Amino acid sequence: MKAEIIAVGTELLLGDILNTNSQFLARELANLGIDCYFQSVVGDNEKRLLDCIKIAFSRADMVILSGGLGPTQDDITKEVVAKYFGKNLVMEKNSLDKIVDYFSQRGYMAESNKKQALVIDGSIVFENNNGLAVGFGYEEDGKIAIVLPGPPKELMPMFKESVRSFLEKKQEYTILSREIHLSGIGESSASEKISDLIEKYENPTIAPYAKDNEMLFRVTAKGRNKEDCSEKLEKAIDEIVERLGEYIYGFDEETLESAVIKKAIEKGLTISTAESCTGGMVAARLVNYPGASKAFINGVITYTNESKHMLLGVKNETLSVYGAVSPQTAEEMCFGAARFSGTNIGISTTGIAGPDGGSKEKPVGLVYVGVAINGIVKVQRLNLKGSRNKIREATTTAVLELLRKELFKMED
Amino acid sequence: MKAEIIAVGTELLLGDILNTNSQFLARELANLGIDCYFQSVVGDNEKRLLDCIKIAFSRADMVILSGGLGPTQDDITKEVVAKYFGKNLVMEKNSLDKIVDYFSQRGYMAESNKKQALVIDGSIVFENNNGLAVGFGYEEDGKIAIVLPGPPKELMPMFKESVRSFLEKKQEYTILSREIHLSGIGESSASEKISDLIEKYENPTIAPYAKDNEMLFRVTAKGRNKEDCSEKLEKAIDEIVERLGEYIYGFDEETLESAVIKKAIEKGLTISTAESCTGGMVAARLVNYPGASKAFINGVITYTNESKHMLLGVKNETLSVYGAVSPQTAEEMCFGAARFSGTNIGISTTGIAGPDGGSKEKPVGLVYVGVAINGIVKVQRLNLKGSRNKIREATTTAVLELLRKELFKMED
Repeated sequence: MKAEIIAVGTELLLGDILNTNSQFLARELANLGIDCYFQSVVGDNEKRLLDCIKIAFSRADMVILSGGLGPTQDDITKEVVAKYFGKNLVMEKNSLDKIVDYFSQRGYMAESNKKQALVIDGSIVFENNNGLAVGFGYEEDGKIAIVLPGPPKELMPMFKESVRSFLEKKQEYTILSREIHLSGIGESSASEKISDLIEKYENPTIAPYAKDNEMLFRVTAKGRNKEDCSEKLEKAIDEIVERLGEYIYGFDEETLESAVIKKAIEKGLTISTAESCTGGMVAARLVNYPGASKAFINGVITYTNESKHMLLGVKNETLSVYGAVSPQTAEEMCFGAARFSGTNIGISTTGIAGPDGGSKEKPVGLVYVGVAINGIVKVQRLNLKGSRNKIREATTTAVLELLRKELFKMED
Repeated sequence: MKAEIIAVGTELLLGDILNTNSQFLARELANLGIDCYFQSVVGDNEKRLLDCIKIAFSRADMVILSGGLGPTQDDITKEVVAKYFGKNLVMEKNSLDKIVDYFSQRGYMAESNKKQALVIDGSIVFENNNGLAVGFGYEEDGKIAIVLPGPPKELMPMFKESVRSFLEKKQEYTILSREIHLSGIGESSASEKISDLIEKYENPTIAPYAKDNEMLFRVTAKGRNKEDCSEKLEKAIDEIVERLGEYIYGFDEETLESAVIKKAIEKGLTISTAESCTGGMVAARLVNYPGASKAFINGVITYTNESKHMLLGVKNETLSVYGAVSPQTAEEMCFGAARFSGTNIGISTTGIAGPDGGSKEKPVGLVYVGVAINGIVKVQRLNLKGSRNKIREATTTAVLELLRKELFKMED
């Protein structure tokens, strides 16, 4: 079955609101294994909406529309869908009772409020437990229209309570996906290393996605049931792990920071941070992980030479001879973080994030990151490009990746 | 001029990512006074993308495409747009140099990476200062295609730096917008306070937008030229400032952190931070502002009771009697930050970000933030809702807003 999503609303065309409904519906369809090749957004305009519905049904068996079920004259979605099928709208009794009851408790009801109880004659009704506009599904000659209210707080529960089971009955197979997360390698290099697998596998499929300074592969299987899908997935994942294992930090919900923290906890190691150019971003990412406090003890942001000396014990000589942005300073910073905090691990960042402050010898984007584990220090030089924020984010990922690699290499 | 937006990417069709690009582009078009009646999303599939482009150009003069400019085989947007016009793609020299340079510093470059420098022969090139994929605009027989990279961090700056002025030249009248940034007040309360102005003004228009834990009004004028627009804007802005001045921290590019840092520099004050639940986010936001080092000296992240005591001098008695999440601890933390760092200002955060760690007396979302200026401490209690990350972000904004208010109140 092929479906399309049409979000109706002038506020979407003006960019006043974000189209979260279409994302939600897209994900639900993907989970149900229903193909969806197009999404559209159109305003509350009869001719344009009708055209949009016609185009959608020329490409798909099912069209899911959201929005335009309100009580005002602008709200025309149900009317236009009915017109497409050449059918009439009728009052849905339960919904009408609910509307009348709602307003009787509040005083005056405008005649137009009754509009929200209209459905196409012969529809399956989707009750709205979070608002007054009823939803419905209408099927004729293999064409299915699903009409849902616009507010996400009404649409999402309606979908989960009624629409999902309506659609499940129309599907024959199950879909299952897993994500493989990598860092320290780019999307194109990683894809190249397994291009033959991407080519070879049709079920499951393997698709690469770039993420901020990281990447992931999504492996998706189609099968008779969950077990059948799992079996299919396992074989492909094993092959990917064999090729790219050193870059893989985790699966599914795992993040780089959760992988690092978990590995540190597993090895009984504690972490402290010393940041200059990242200004707290490294610590903030570690603390993203709810269990961080079991390994992350404390961090310092030393934004001046004086504070690097005072809080971390970086030698004044080092700062004056080599400068704050130097491998020597990065080394003394991570070493100092671990020593002053009494942790096994210290990590450090120091660099020129720009836009000013660069020179010929030390251009914007020059960054050193350091990791000290039980007194053994590793420093890495980075030459980064982009905005101040991009350089700082890439630095954060790089130092976490350096730590991850060192932790994963350690003998148990 | 009529425009349409096409977002290209299978990850959008699967609901893996939210279509923030289309919202951004829709808003930009609205601000430029360019009509946009349809938005579409289509996957990385040649036939379907080509069909989508044909439909869009049958309804509009201009089509803005985003996504599918990456180095992999999947990325076909430029190829398909070229096919639509019957044109060839050529290497754009500057972009190619940048790509070669980028990879020469990192080692191996896949041949496919060069693809990102391709543009349609005869295009206006939009430089990408935040990534490797070049953007471009191509015009033929009154049809304009604008091709932009998918990552919002590349698309948005590219639009602001190059595309906006390209489009402005195609418009007969001038549109000018200014943004008024507020914090410490919600979107609906702020809108209510000036609802009569929003109603009264037609040119310029006044539109409220919610931003993470903050809000802004965009005031947009249409006029013969910039001066004409400026004059129109000034009057409306004056009226808004009169009503909501205490909540306004700045205009246009100003951020809460840049407003705080600038005001501290102006008053000759230095800042240090002491963070618990935010884990570095407050410092990271201050350091967002390139001039931060003139006021921000250093910060500590004290994630354990021990480190609060050791690095900030929080009394063990305070921690055992009142707990780490208490007004007393918040007070000693910000006071300690200032004293240990020798700064005029110390700011602190301590709270329960969840998902675990809450109790009946101290539920998830209970947070205390503190600001000490020249020895005078102010502590604020927050009761926040939402995910761990949401609570941490709201805390970060709240402590910066508290500091801003105190700084703006200070006599010169």
